[in-house]
Amino acid sequence: MDLDFQLHERLQADTFELGEWQLSRLLLLNDRRFPWLILVPRRPDLSELHDLGESDLQLLMQELARASELLKRVTGADKINVGALGNIVSQLHLHVIARFESDEAWPGPVWGCGHAIPYSEAEVAALQTALKESGAI
Amino acid sequence: MDLDFQLHERLQADTFELGEWQLSRLLLLNDRRFPWLILVPRRPDLSELHDLGESDLQLLMQELARASELLKRVTGADKINVGALGNIVSQLHLHVIARFESDEAWPGPVWGCGHAIPYSEAEVAALQTALKESGAI
Repeated sequence: MDLDFQLHERLQADTFELGEWQLSRLLLLNDRRFPWLILVPRRPDLSELHDLGESDLQLLMQELARASELLKRVTGADKINVGALGNIVSQLHLHVIARFESDEAWPGPVWGCGHAIPYSEAEVAALQTALKESGAI
Repeated sequence: MDLDFQLHERLQADTFELGEWQLSRLLLLNDRRFPWLILVPRRPDLSELHDLGESDLQLLMQELARASELLKRVTGADKINVGALGNIVSQLHLHVIARFESDEAWPGPVWGCGHAIPYSEAEVAALQTALKESGAI
């Protein structure tokens, strides 16, 4: 079903792949300032939420709620921020971000805030292991 | 079902009510720089998307897609931005914003960008009439 799907090169460059859910590829943005997941529905030629068919839309909302709950539980965030912008990368992708009152962008949005600080390889590997062990991916 | 629902006073102050859909109250943010709808599910004590029950979640996604499609069609926007932040007003509300490559915040996010420019009463009335006549509200 997703033979024609190809992850946008900018998303590929800025993230680590965590796994694949039923509809979406689950990515981790490489910015250790904010625990930040990205869901990308594995369908070609999507840009807006309303481009999705009814059943994909429902599936995406379930996966979005799942990612939101997971991130809140794992990080203890004060608030989860969710967004689908796509002004720069138009391929439909959803941001799910753990926010803390102590983070550098609070209470503003994280998009466009300063510069990313990359994870170490060990940090990413530990996160992937923890998520796998928890059954999340 | 929504007897305990009360719109947050900040949302009340910053918006015009456009109508009520099955789950959500549909608001227009009073900032003529950006055509900007806000959906507020009429349920008490919601903060995160994952606080919604399964059927409400599906309904909200349908209403979100409907608002997104409506706003794109009516405004001819280059991109629709969708977000649920809640760092300042924690009551669950979803932003649906028409973005243009010519707008003052492009390609950054609109949240936290400059200062709102209010609509005139006539502009809001005309918009409400147009939406009613189109059957959108």
